[in-house]
Amino acid sequence: MRAAVYHGPEDIRVEDVEDPELDSPRGAVVRVTHTAVCGSDLWFYRGRSDRDAPSPVGHEPMGIVEEVGEKVRSVEPGDRVFAPFVISCGSCEYCRKGLHTSCVNGDSWGGDNGGAQGELVRCPHADGTLVRVPDRHADDEDTLEALLPLTDVMGTGHHAAVNAGVEAGSTCAVVGDGAVGLCGVLAARRLGAERIIAVGHHEDRLEIAEEFGATDLVTERGEEAIERVNEMTKGGVNHVLECVGATSAMETATGVCRPGGTVGYVGVPHGMGDGLDLHEFFGNNISLRGGVAPVRAYADELMADVLQGTLDPSPVFTKTVDLDGVPEGYAAMDDREAVKVLVKP
Amino acid sequence: MRAAVYHGPEDIRVEDVEDPELDSPRGAVVRVTHTAVCGSDLWFYRGRSDRDAPSPVGHEPMGIVEEVGEKVRSVEPGDRVFAPFVISCGSCEYCRKGLHTSCVNGDSWGGDNGGAQGELVRCPHADGTLVRVPDRHADDEDTLEALLPLTDVMGTGHHAAVNAGVEAGSTCAVVGDGAVGLCGVLAARRLGAERIIAVGHHEDRLEIAEEFGATDLVTERGEEAIERVNEMTKGGVNHVLECVGATSAMETATGVCRPGGTVGYVGVPHGMGDGLDLHEFFGNNISLRGGVAPVRAYADELMADVLQGTLDPSPVFTKTVDLDGVPEGYAAMDDREAVKVLVKP
Repeated sequence: MRAAVYHGPEDIRVEDVEDPELDSPRGAVVRVTHTAVCGSDLWFYRGRSDRDAPSPVGHEPMGIVEEVGEKVRSVEPGDRVFAPFVISCGSCEYCRKGLHTSCVNGDSWGGDNGGAQGELVRCPHADGTLVRVPDRHADDEDTLEALLPLTDVMGTGHHAAVNAGVEAGSTCAVVGDGAVGLCGVLAARRLGAERIIAVGHHEDRLEIAEEFGATDLVTERGEEAIERVNEMTKGGVNHVLECVGATSAMETATGVCRPGGTVGYVGVPHGMGDGLDLHEFFGNNISLRGGVAPVRAYADELMADVLQGTLDPSPVFTKTVDLDGVPEGYAAMDDREAVKVLVKP
Repeated sequence: MRAAVYHGPEDIRVEDVEDPELDSPRGAVVRVTHTAVCGSDLWFYRGRSDRDAPSPVGHEPMGIVEEVGEKVRSVEPGDRVFAPFVISCGSCEYCRKGLHTSCVNGDSWGGDNGGAQGELVRCPHADGTLVRVPDRHADDEDTLEALLPLTDVMGTGHHAAVNAGVEAGSTCAVVGDGAVGLCGVLAARRLGAERIIAVGHHEDRLEIAEEFGATDLVTERGEEAIERVNEMTKGGVNHVLECVGATSAMETATGVCRPGGTVGYVGVPHGMGDGLDLHEFFGNNISLRGGVAPVRAYADELMADVLQGTLDPSPVFTKTVDLDGVPEGYAAMDDREAVKVLVKP
């Protein structure tokens, strides 16, 4: 098959690789029809995180089931499915409590499973991982593009909102205007937040935030952003979604959080030097909740909303490429020309 | 009056100082009958935190009201009262929501208010700060000694337990066997925890932990302690009380916390170098909650238990001194000869 392969920083090539093969009774092979480039892919692309080279890339697969193992019950060949960025068994303690990212049998895309930015992937735990799109919606392109973000960014934004404690009537702030931050705005609106303050630096992205339900936009940086939000809210908000992961974003999140409030964080911590300064958290009794998002836990609930037409995160896709266009997709995201790139292999 | 005064590291002197005087209609002056030396006092005593010298010390006052301002309603001269380590107004947004440590009119003991390790203190917000002991119990020495820890360590241990999410039937771990850790054990038992694993290094203190309700004692350090607890609990506990504040204690707390669990922390963060490593929190979706304890919020509830005889944290006092003995009290705590020192001026 053909697949995008990482060869080193800024060096993604689309080339022929071996097909991943079904090798377990609970597994499945899926022909990828839709996938995406993720903000987190930029870490290795920019050389800021280590990754073996060569290695297949992509972790947001949607496609048609080609083949299943004999013990698979929930999907059959021909089904349209999508899958979270983490592979989970669906039956261990953590999967049962909705923390699929801590699955004791967990696995990841890439390696022998194949990357999602390729023609085929193998999922070793089909029942616990793959989410079947009902037949009625399985070939509707708009629906599929609205469902695709549930593989990662939409579930992640939702995790931030849930962990920040957003509920009907809440006032909240969303730090970050990347795809996850935008989905955080959408998630907060869906949970009934009354006032949603989006903090970001890019006009085009903040326009999407407004479309997604942000009631206030803050474009200042650092201390100025903190002062602005605290002025607007008479001292900060009780619910903050930290959707970046950088030290500066965490500082902004803490700075706009009201004493006794909660920061829900989902950005992979990076650039924090030796760690997080706890003093402001401690002195103000600010809770820090969240982590890597168990998006499988949210998939059914969010899919129901997409299918009934009340949730559509697809505007985060501002560019579409085919498989050969994957390297161009990485470059566009690296240059911030695209918020998120949709790939149709 | 006579009072203990900090003159520099390891230099506490009891000397004549000016009496604090009533200077506001909402204030009160209290003659201190009972107070204590706190583990947090050791930070300046050991020269590890800055403090002006000379300055009066002590922040856990209990005594008899001498004089009140004309607007004070809840206490009168002659009343037995105790007060939290933070002075709060009782009527701002944060006091009303039980976060008295973020009081917008907050103040602290020491300075012109006088330190609690002295004969008199002035409380500028009597109604919002002082807790009146009912007359029936006001002169019962055993009761007073059981109430005194509510000024700080008992409320702090309770804050750790509440923030760790301990409830009836919980299995929890308490990291630290100082007075706060021991009170954390007591608080967890009071909240109905079924299994309480106390992690500490001092046999005499762990004996108190056992008396307070610890069901398991772990005396190993670092990685060995983590392995031991994880072995005992098949992978960690959902509720961890971090009652120290040092990096090593936070690492132990994180290490014994089950994925998706919560660390309730109340130890003033120190010795963390440049900050807290978030990666384990992030990867395992461990929540971090807590901070400086609003012990005023818990005073009435905990006092009710003390008065009905179902709560007695006084065993944390393993040494008693008079005012002249305060320097000796500091030395005893510094040498770990005493868990906590009771002072009767």
